[in-house]
Amino acid sequence: MAYELFYWPGIQGRGEFVRLALEDSGTAYTDVARQPESEGGGVPALMKLLQNTELERPPFAPPFLRDGSLVISQSANILQYLGPKIGLAPRDEAGRLWAHQLQMMVTDFIKEAHDTHHPVGSSLYYEEQKPEAMRYTQNFLDVRLLKYLGYFERVLERNSKGPQYMVGDCASYVDTSMFQIVEGMRYAFPNAMAKAESLVPKLVALHRQVSSREKLAAYLASNRRIPFNEKGIFRRYPELDLPSRSS
Amino acid sequence: MAYELFYWPGIQGRGEFVRLALEDSGTAYTDVARQPESEGGGVPALMKLLQNTELERPPFAPPFLRDGSLVISQSANILQYLGPKIGLAPRDEAGRLWAHQLQMMVTDFIKEAHDTHHPVGSSLYYEEQKPEAMRYTQNFLDVRLLKYLGYFERVLERNSKGPQYMVGDCASYVDTSMFQIVEGMRYAFPNAMAKAESLVPKLVALHRQVSSREKLAAYLASNRRIPFNEKGIFRRYPELDLPSRSS
Repeated sequence: MAYELFYWPGIQGRGEFVRLALEDSGTAYTDVARQPESEGGGVPALMKLLQNTELERPPFAPPFLRDGSLVISQSANILQYLGPKIGLAPRDEAGRLWAHQLQMMVTDFIKEAHDTHHPVGSSLYYEEQKPEAMRYTQNFLDVRLLKYLGYFERVLERNSKGPQYMVGDCASYVDTSMFQIVEGMRYAFPNAMAKAESLVPKLVALHRQVSSREKLAAYLASNRRIPFNEKGIFRRYPELDLPSRSS
Repeated sequence: MAYELFYWPGIQGRGEFVRLALEDSGTAYTDVARQPESEGGGVPALMKLLQNTELERPPFAPPFLRDGSLVISQSANILQYLGPKIGLAPRDEAGRLWAHQLQMMVTDFIKEAHDTHHPVGSSLYYEEQKPEAMRYTQNFLDVRLLKYLGYFERVLERNSKGPQYMVGDCASYVDTSMFQIVEGMRYAFPNAMAKAESLVPKLVALHRQVSSREKLAAYLASNRRIPFNEKGIFRRYPELDLPSRSS
């Protein structure tokens, strides 16, 4: 049976990191909440599993993946589980730990990117926390963005197998995640990102290389790829795309 | 050779989740940055590894663990690696994925707990972000705290082996992490936590049980346990320990 991915149907969000790996590897999967309700899909199917009180090991929040009797959540955990099965993880334990560690940094990064528009709390609207968002974002773009991107660039520079992949000499889910970070930041903060990219050429090259892989390019051109929008992690609010103080 | 843990010497912080597992299992380890500088320890030893440009796979930040030639960072990743070796992880793959998933939620939770005093950014002082901290914390205590603790309580309730452990019928690093969350929240938010605890009796019982384990109790009573302070994740700022709006 194909893997079943459960995620909110209207956004890329955290589920997209899993989708990209599934699509890049050409793995069969059902994006459950995007199937018609009449066929057992939609948000009701997602909520049914999320609220199933019979489930001994319930997920806290989407995304989660069902593989037979296993239900796994947390995107980095899902990717760690899937990676070796879909040919997007290193073969050795040290490589897998390293890939997972990098993916956990992706998790940290997207939490911070998300908080640019929700620095007080997800239960409030952006419009209710705009002053805080302005201040948070200034710090994020001035300090945090380059700390993360600079680190990822360093990882590519130091890879003894060359800067074509994040981990050793094999394609992994970390590469597709790097693609998504660059893509998302370009959408949300075109000005700040244009400046940042000049400092991380290897990361930009990796983004280009990943986006031109056959299966991934086909996915990106398809309607399976949900466009970025202002309900996801990466949102374009021009008032937040501030000129850096240090510029 | 004993495991070498690298973490800031003056705080419990994220390193404490690793320390607790090492101590509870009676595992030999060196807390490198807490050793005398004259013996190759101290912060210089930590910085030396962190800034070592020869390292192909550098950590982003402490904590990191060195085991021979492996350097692993991200506390949840370290615990996933150590767990099976020190007898604090389930034997089966499904159990390990589940334990790790719960540990990643601990990571998420302590990031949010940390942000109560640093909602704008870690590079600024608390005093520079106090209004934002007040508003963030209100939301954290009103909405987020019980969402997390309620989930952990549910995990204990649904454990078919009983509520003595978070995962199946074996002690794991998730239990020691639950201990630390309860302990830290009691320190930082005594009022809010007293109220919250009445709703999560199984979690409170787990905290009590973990704290009375022989090796852990000895550790907690020793000077190896750094006291909570206002430089770590859990800080006691009485002005933030607000009465809940929903009370």
